[in-house]
Amino acid sequence: MNAIIISIGDELTSGLTIDSNAAWLGRQLAELGISCPLQLTIGDNQSAIVAAISQSVTQCDILLISGGLGPTEDDLTRGSVAEAIGEPLVTDQVAMGELEAFFRRINRTMTENNRLQAMRPISASCVKNSCGTAPGIMARLGKTQIFVMPGVPKEMKAMFELSYKPLLQAAAGGVVRRTMALNSCGAGESWIGARIGDLMKRGANPAVGTTVHDGIVSVRIYATGKPAEASAMIEEMANTVRHRLGELIFSADQIALETVVVQALMHQDRTVTTAESCTGGMVAMMLTHVPGSSGCFKRGWITYSDESKAIDLGVDPELIKKYGAVSREVAGAMAQQARSRAEAHWAIAVTGNAGPASDDPKNPVGLIFIAIAGPNGGDDIYVRSCQFPGDRQSIRLRSSQMALTLLRLRLLGLDPDAILPV
Amino acid sequence: MNAIIISIGDELTSGLTIDSNAAWLGRQLAELGISCPLQLTIGDNQSAIVAAISQSVTQCDILLISGGLGPTEDDLTRGSVAEAIGEPLVTDQVAMGELEAFFRRINRTMTENNRLQAMRPISASCVKNSCGTAPGIMARLGKTQIFVMPGVPKEMKAMFELSYKPLLQAAAGGVVRRTMALNSCGAGESWIGARIGDLMKRGANPAVGTTVHDGIVSVRIYATGKPAEASAMIEEMANTVRHRLGELIFSADQIALETVVVQALMHQDRTVTTAESCTGGMVAMMLTHVPGSSGCFKRGWITYSDESKAIDLGVDPELIKKYGAVSREVAGAMAQQARSRAEAHWAIAVTGNAGPASDDPKNPVGLIFIAIAGPNGGDDIYVRSCQFPGDRQSIRLRSSQMALTLLRLRLLGLDPDAILPV
Repeated sequence: MNAIIISIGDELTSGLTIDSNAAWLGRQLAELGISCPLQLTIGDNQSAIVAAISQSVTQCDILLISGGLGPTEDDLTRGSVAEAIGEPLVTDQVAMGELEAFFRRINRTMTENNRLQAMRPISASCVKNSCGTAPGIMARLGKTQIFVMPGVPKEMKAMFELSYKPLLQAAAGGVVRRTMALNSCGAGESWIGARIGDLMKRGANPAVGTTVHDGIVSVRIYATGKPAEASAMIEEMANTVRHRLGELIFSADQIALETVVVQALMHQDRTVTTAESCTGGMVAMMLTHVPGSSGCFKRGWITYSDESKAIDLGVDPELIKKYGAVSREVAGAMAQQARSRAEAHWAIAVTGNAGPASDDPKNPVGLIFIAIAGPNGGDDIYVRSCQFPGDRQSIRLRSSQMALTLLRLRLLGLDPDAILPV
Repeated sequence: MNAIIISIGDELTSGLTIDSNAAWLGRQLAELGISCPLQLTIGDNQSAIVAAISQSVTQCDILLISGGLGPTEDDLTRGSVAEAIGEPLVTDQVAMGELEAFFRRINRTMTENNRLQAMRPISASCVKNSCGTAPGIMARLGKTQIFVMPGVPKEMKAMFELSYKPLLQAAAGGVVRRTMALNSCGAGESWIGARIGDLMKRGANPAVGTTVHDGIVSVRIYATGKPAEASAMIEEMANTVRHRLGELIFSADQIALETVVVQALMHQDRTVTTAESCTGGMVAMMLTHVPGSSGCFKRGWITYSDESKAIDLGVDPELIKKYGAVSREVAGAMAQQARSRAEAHWAIAVTGNAGPASDDPKNPVGLIFIAIAGPNGGDDIYVRSCQFPGDRQSIRLRSSQMALTLLRLRLLGLDPDAILPV
């Protein structure tokens, strides 16, 4: 069983509004095991809408349409569906009664335009809108079932959940699609692709793919089948992927890197502090995004200038003079000093050049040193040198994510150099 | 001249990712006066992509395609374009050279899959990707010009701006749509609506509307006409809006709040420091996002625990005991102490409860105190108490934005209480 989604509205094609309805509906269909190979976005133009409906019904079992059911001149979906089916619009008496009741309830006068909202093609039926005025329309054209919903996301979602989803569930016959994302940080998409490329066969079930979002590379697994089958397929493939990528995977699905790090610290009853130069507070901000992070994070420093590295952390000014603020040595000393001043078990220090410019060929834009000082005191310092691509913002984000990744691996008792590509 | 936009990726049709590329491109086309009656979203399926390209070129002058140019098995756009045109893929030597240079620069080994990214249909050309590995493709099929871009939004936008927009501009000629956004922070959308509602007539030219994005309320002005006409209409309406909203407007278009604050500090030759509790480094992070911020920001503190407020900043522990860490008094003392320790002209301090839970009815979730200590010493402290709605993340963001807004107004010599709604 397959579906096509049509979103209607000039505000969508002109980019004033981002279409979140189609994505939401796509997710719903995927979970019901209904494939959705195509989504269309069309402006407020009746002949274009009619053409799209007529063509779509030749290609799908289910056609979901959202938008264009409002009371104004540019709401053309009702008329377009009628034209595509080849039927006149008639007034639905039940829908009209509900509309009238709605306007009485909110104490407003109903306009003539609102009356148009109670119309439907003669063979179709109106579908109740539980949180707005525009009823939906359920119609059939050829072998295709057409479900029309309002464009307002809240109304669309409520109508889908209450009226259409139960029908689709029954029709789909118990086959569902389950998904899982395994999230990694510290290796590129192609590095990961080289290790799991053989699992990414086109059209396979379960299917495997990778996506990158804000520096996090996720391996996505999709399985279609009866619920228990699909879950078992996901589980087995996840084990294979985890086996290939090992500790590079930090979480599944929506669990953020910073959440994993804070949970590990709390679980081990350990504290962490931060000393940040080029990331300017981003590492601390990420840690403190996690509810309850006050249990493991008490204080941190933003030491943007050389002077503050010396005064606030106590880094030896001679060291900065000798090696430069962007150096392995200064990163290590920042972490060591922060850990000692904060009386924390662990410390993260970041220093580097996030750009946009560099006045020193030894410190190119993107060169970042990240140090992790650990609970075993003096020598327990790991420093990694990274060269990140991109602009200032993405260099800072990647630096912060790498810092959290290094701490995560150290908390697992692992050597980051044995896990991450060099 | 008209265009069709195709977005490619299973993550889009399955709703895992919301397609923001099509909306952004739609906006760009609207500004160029190019109509875009149709947008398509297609999964990773070569025959579906080929069919969509073949059909689209019969309906449009310009075909914009984003996504599916990555280095993995499920990236099918390159091959699909070649198949639609009916040509083999060949390696583009310039693109290959750039790819090789990219991998040398970031010190990583190039995989075989990456090499595929330098391929193009024989009559097409590769287009430079200024911030990623995947080159774009520019091709022609019949009368239609095809512009292919990567799916990563940043890479897509950069490629469109640098390579495709100039071509489209030259081709479009005539009537354009100009837009301007006037950005505000500190008052709600309905408060602003009450002051400019009469300007927001439907279908007017210029048209005025408001949008809210991440706590910033923007008044958007759209004007359609010949370039000089449209610009003049925008300018006149912008003056009216600025007259109504005064210093609440902090910038136009893409200029961020933190950029305005850093520029004001640099212009006045002043420095700032930060002492953050619940925002955990976010204020400092925002300031240091701005290139060149090291000129006005040298150091900051994240004092998450009561102890660190006392030790690192020197806030009197008795004060914390008496009023609690979330209080007007402690916020003021944090700012005063930070300013003095950092030897800065200005200091921002934030303390509050960002949630998710509160164990003290006097400190409900969302209660935040923000203090600004100014260059006139002892008594020059402004403290504002705020009650923000939303979840932890949005409370932290709004607190940080309000802190920057308060400093911005103080830098203008204004009393925030005279400008912002109470």
